[in-house]
Amino acid sequence: MKEKLTIVKVGGAVVEDPAQLGALLDGFCRIGGRKALVHGGGRRATQVASRLGIESRMVGGRRITDEAMLEVVTMVYGGLVNKGIVAALASRGVSAIGLTGADMDVMRSHRRPVRDGIDFGFVGDVDRADAKRLSALIEGGAVPVLAPLTHDGNGQLLNTNADTIASEAAKALAQAYDVTLVYSFEKPGVMADADDPTSVIPSITRADFERLTADGTVAGGMIPKIENALAAVEAGVSRVVITQASAIGTDAGTVVH
Amino acid sequence: MKEKLTIVKVGGAVVEDPAQLGALLDGFCRIGGRKALVHGGGRRATQVASRLGIESRMVGGRRITDEAMLEVVTMVYGGLVNKGIVAALASRGVSAIGLTGADMDVMRSHRRPVRDGIDFGFVGDVDRADAKRLSALIEGGAVPVLAPLTHDGNGQLLNTNADTIASEAAKALAQAYDVTLVYSFEKPGVMADADDPTSVIPSITRADFERLTADGTVAGGMIPKIENALAAVEAGVSRVVITQASAIGTDAGTVVH
Repeated sequence: MKEKLTIVKVGGAVVEDPAQLGALLDGFCRIGGRKALVHGGGRRATQVASRLGIESRMVGGRRITDEAMLEVVTMVYGGLVNKGIVAALASRGVSAIGLTGADMDVMRSHRRPVRDGIDFGFVGDVDRADAKRLSALIEGGAVPVLAPLTHDGNGQLLNTNADTIASEAAKALAQAYDVTLVYSFEKPGVMADADDPTSVIPSITRADFERLTADGTVAGGMIPKIENALAAVEAGVSRVVITQASAIGTDAGTVVH
Repeated sequence: MKEKLTIVKVGGAVVEDPAQLGALLDGFCRIGGRKALVHGGGRRATQVASRLGIESRMVGGRRITDEAMLEVVTMVYGGLVNKGIVAALASRGVSAIGLTGADMDVMRSHRRPVRDGIDFGFVGDVDRADAKRLSALIEGGAVPVLAPLTHDGNGQLLNTNADTIASEAAKALAQAYDVTLVYSFEKPGVMADADDPTSVIPSITRADFERLTADGTVAGGMIPKIENALAAVEAGVSRVVITQASAIGTDAGTVVH
């Protein structure tokens, strides 16, 4: 039987608010067994860029990353946010280790090609996560804290979406572990009634998803989110949990499996 | 017999110049066996701080680190400089892992107390380096790349002198390894004649040092540098090499032993 591993992805809005981050990390500490954390930090990057006189340009929610912006995200994601989380986990007795994809070559990517006339710049699409090196760290007692940065193997760091980092790490590690991938979300889970927080759907399979989209219960931005969760499950991840940051470490939320 | 381990400390002037950094990393790659790198980055921190409208204040060559400056050094040392070096080493086939003292709790410090009316702010004086965790990473095939940041164990990151990080890591690891500590320097080594680069003194012991200071051959800023090297040797480090960055990976320079 495989050992359990929980990978929690937490977005920028939570990591940038000390109170919310503290609560998230307390919840993360309550998760038993092997675990890893993946963080964003986009809002903080936008703030620092703005103070440096660098404008943030987004296309479809993704950041255009020219050389100046790559320096900003390397500083903010790899330094400020990552090391802040590592030190906060260390104070809670967790042997955290901050990583970008370049560290021990754990995640490699290629620069996204220009498509439909849009050049995202130094943005990486993931080629592979190195499950062997990640699991060696985990088996050594460390808790990886992954920043949304990868590299191309030729010395170039690349800005990479944190959701993608989380799902690529989860899929690669699913070969060796019984992986639960947790996405922290602004709502308590997938809700049957968008206005009723008590209407969380506890469990969604592929068949449920088809029924819920056909009858209109699930619509809009939830569709790609659940599609991505089902894709991770179909690639070997045992379950994907969509839940509120404040509920990390509990059984609340929607389980996609 | 202990395995050999080489720890190279490289200062800000080298890491901030891409050509010099490239040459340094090429030299570092030529060093056989187990190794680690410690880097500075002060000039880059001063630049970024200045662009953010934050003034750098130094006392006795050390940076006063208030909260805003701590954010800057966390970004610059932990992110920009550290991850740039890690990615550059990865492109040379080295399995580098970037670390602050908070990562896996490898180096803990306490905030420097106010002394003679000078409050350095968030500056850490090292209490201990964790040789066991560092050597576990090294024995796993990783090359630690240490940023000049430590933590106090209570969630507080602290700015810490890179020379100190290098000597504390070297002293702790000397229990398990035959350690060579290399300080990259702007000159080819300790010179008998300050104006003659061919006058490098190849070897200095405590007895040599006493003779060289008594006759005035060694003076000024070289005295504390050699004192620190001798202190590391007396604490178990096999030898300390003072050499030019461009000579890393060769036998050039002054060996203090």
